[in-house]
Amino acid sequence: MITIDDVKNARERIEEVTRGTHLLHSMTLSGENDVYLKVESLQRTGSFKIRGAFNKVASLTDEEKAKGVITASNGNHAQAVALAASLNGVKCKVCMSDKALMSRMEDARRHGADVVVVPGEFEDADEEAKRLADEKGYIYIDRGDDEQVMAGNGTVALEILEQMPDLDALVVPVGTGALLAGAAVAVKALKPECRVYGVQATGASAMARSFRKGEIVSVPHINTFAAGIAVSEPSETAFEMIKDKVDGIITVTEDEIASAMLTLLEKQKLLAEGGGAVTAAAVMFDKIPESGKKIACIISGGNVDINILNRVIARGLMMNDRKTNITLQMDDKQGTLARACNIISECGGNILEVHHDRGASNIQLSSCYVTFELETKDAAQARLLRETLESEGYKLVRQ
Amino acid sequence: MITIDDVKNARERIEEVTRGTHLLHSMTLSGENDVYLKVESLQRTGSFKIRGAFNKVASLTDEEKAKGVITASNGNHAQAVALAASLNGVKCKVCMSDKALMSRMEDARRHGADVVVVPGEFEDADEEAKRLADEKGYIYIDRGDDEQVMAGNGTVALEILEQMPDLDALVVPVGTGALLAGAAVAVKALKPECRVYGVQATGASAMARSFRKGEIVSVPHINTFAAGIAVSEPSETAFEMIKDKVDGIITVTEDEIASAMLTLLEKQKLLAEGGGAVTAAAVMFDKIPESGKKIACIISGGNVDINILNRVIARGLMMNDRKTNITLQMDDKQGTLARACNIISECGGNILEVHHDRGASNIQLSSCYVTFELETKDAAQARLLRETLESEGYKLVRQ
Repeated sequence: MITIDDVKNARERIEEVTRGTHLLHSMTLSGENDVYLKVESLQRTGSFKIRGAFNKVASLTDEEKAKGVITASNGNHAQAVALAASLNGVKCKVCMSDKALMSRMEDARRHGADVVVVPGEFEDADEEAKRLADEKGYIYIDRGDDEQVMAGNGTVALEILEQMPDLDALVVPVGTGALLAGAAVAVKALKPECRVYGVQATGASAMARSFRKGEIVSVPHINTFAAGIAVSEPSETAFEMIKDKVDGIITVTEDEIASAMLTLLEKQKLLAEGGGAVTAAAVMFDKIPESGKKIACIISGGNVDINILNRVIARGLMMNDRKTNITLQMDDKQGTLARACNIISECGGNILEVHHDRGASNIQLSSCYVTFELETKDAAQARLLRETLESEGYKLVRQ
Repeated sequence: MITIDDVKNARERIEEVTRGTHLLHSMTLSGENDVYLKVESLQRTGSFKIRGAFNKVASLTDEEKAKGVITASNGNHAQAVALAASLNGVKCKVCMSDKALMSRMEDARRHGADVVVVPGEFEDADEEAKRLADEKGYIYIDRGDDEQVMAGNGTVALEILEQMPDLDALVVPVGTGALLAGAAVAVKALKPECRVYGVQATGASAMARSFRKGEIVSVPHINTFAAGIAVSEPSETAFEMIKDKVDGIITVTEDEIASAMLTLLEKQKLLAEGGGAVTAAAVMFDKIPESGKKIACIISGGNVDINILNRVIARGLMMNDRKTNITLQMDDKQGTLARACNIISECGGNILEVHHDRGASNIQLSSCYVTFELETKDAAQARLLRETLESEGYKLVRQ
């Protein structure tokens, strides 16, 4: 268990190396409530994790520092520990699964870590880190279950309360719970009437279930693209604090997370990773039980693989009718396609691709299916396109 | 011509309504020089333009304010004037081309403007704005050629010099020149030894050419996706200041801009529009004639259409070998495709799509072309994939 004093001490340790990130008002997300975003995606290493990692490494004794540190992580924690160690002049090893993204390995190396690639999953890398710590005497740093890490993470809440003393509620992403625990301790010590909510992905809701049940529940089967919070079991230490201090834990779906990521990108100009966008998703889809209040959402990190982002954007565009697929059943006659293209263009649609399917078993030999992939402006335009094509005699195939 | 006093006065006017945006150190862009990013993409309305627009509207007389303001813009300037007017309690009309993005029109409306949609190009909208100003007595606000706008824009340089007093060079995007002029006036008054560079797109380099020639040159044919700086003729007032105070104007290509946008997104977690990313592109592609210096790049805005962003990412992924297309000439025999898929998967490639072309005129009837769209990690993996397929007897078709 940590106290507000631990968080305040951490603040003094980390102040010089971390960025005091913006608390940005979001016009787009405000409505029912007045919403502010704490953009830890712009923190050094691209996530809040440097706060906890630096506090942990800086609070080691000289003897411990001389031994060097080791940790396991496929993502943000790896970079954060690597930078924290290098800033403290401490040697650092990071065990990563061989399935981790190449770019994540390079990020850790760039921050000075010696990366040990371990075949298998994160759990295998973690086991190897513990084994090496035992064998070689390195100090093992747990990504979640560590009080100095939690105290360091809690500093983000101190900053938020300074930036907005009249805050009504704080919304925090939850993986292991090490951020939520630290933030809740800080908030409830300084402003007990301020509510603290955690947010998880529906597909990785171990903390939400544990919170409901009052005891640790693990979720063996994780299913979320938000890698940063894809955790199957809460940190025990974090859970002890969370069950007392937190007002609720909310879950959001994968589509809600993707939609929030797109909104943050398009409206706030911020790249958030899935785990960083869950708080915005909770606000966007009205899951926070507050009304007329000042709410701060921690956007905890921005480290998302660009291939995944590309898919998120594509999905978001479809969801918002900015991309539209229309399939027509057409007679194989001269001019039919040209006329359809003209109609689409006159309605302001931009044709990206045209696919023909002549082999479908459920249509006549003389017909074919033609699918248009279109750029559209909005739902109204997409509807206009469909209606105009139908009124011009085209047969739309519902999908 | 404006002076540092105009910029300082502007600062006092705008301070309460603008955000003091971060000046973020960029590890990724630093190398030859130490590079910092002034993230005006996170400014209110998503660009620096609120600085100039607010200063302009706030400095109108009460009589002028009562008349209301009008401007023409398809992008950032529209939003900025709309918000500036609404914050000053002034009525606002914005003329926009009917080709402007629907989302841009909505942004201006959301900030309280009455949007007049004008058939044609930006120039037509601008003409209509001037005509309405004449007819109805509205105060017309030029997007570039206005001293109060320039003075307001210059405040961004004041902030940067406060954030980093030992700055060696400032790099600024250039469209009309209204930002560069204001920034140059501020920098050269307060720190004459600090260099100031402008950056344009190669396909819209009117200011660069004018600067070289010493007189205004217009570029009738504009060719850039960076809409915010797609300007065919410099502002005359801005040019008079720029030719005296600026140390150089640099141009960057469309691919360089796209690559910078992707880097800002992936490494800095920032969404920059094309015109906002040109400064980062100039640094990334070693176009700034400085070495071992502290350089600040203004990332001037983040208002990019998400469909365009999607294409930029796709192009950037191809450029960085994160997406790879491989076309094989295959015999139409059982198992040939399956074996190729196995090889690709064993080399770590992820198959996104497979296209068959059986009709190509230059191959035998029993053969076909098969194109794989793949997600790859990097150039080394893409090369490994190609080499392994060739060594296994597949015939690669060069594209």
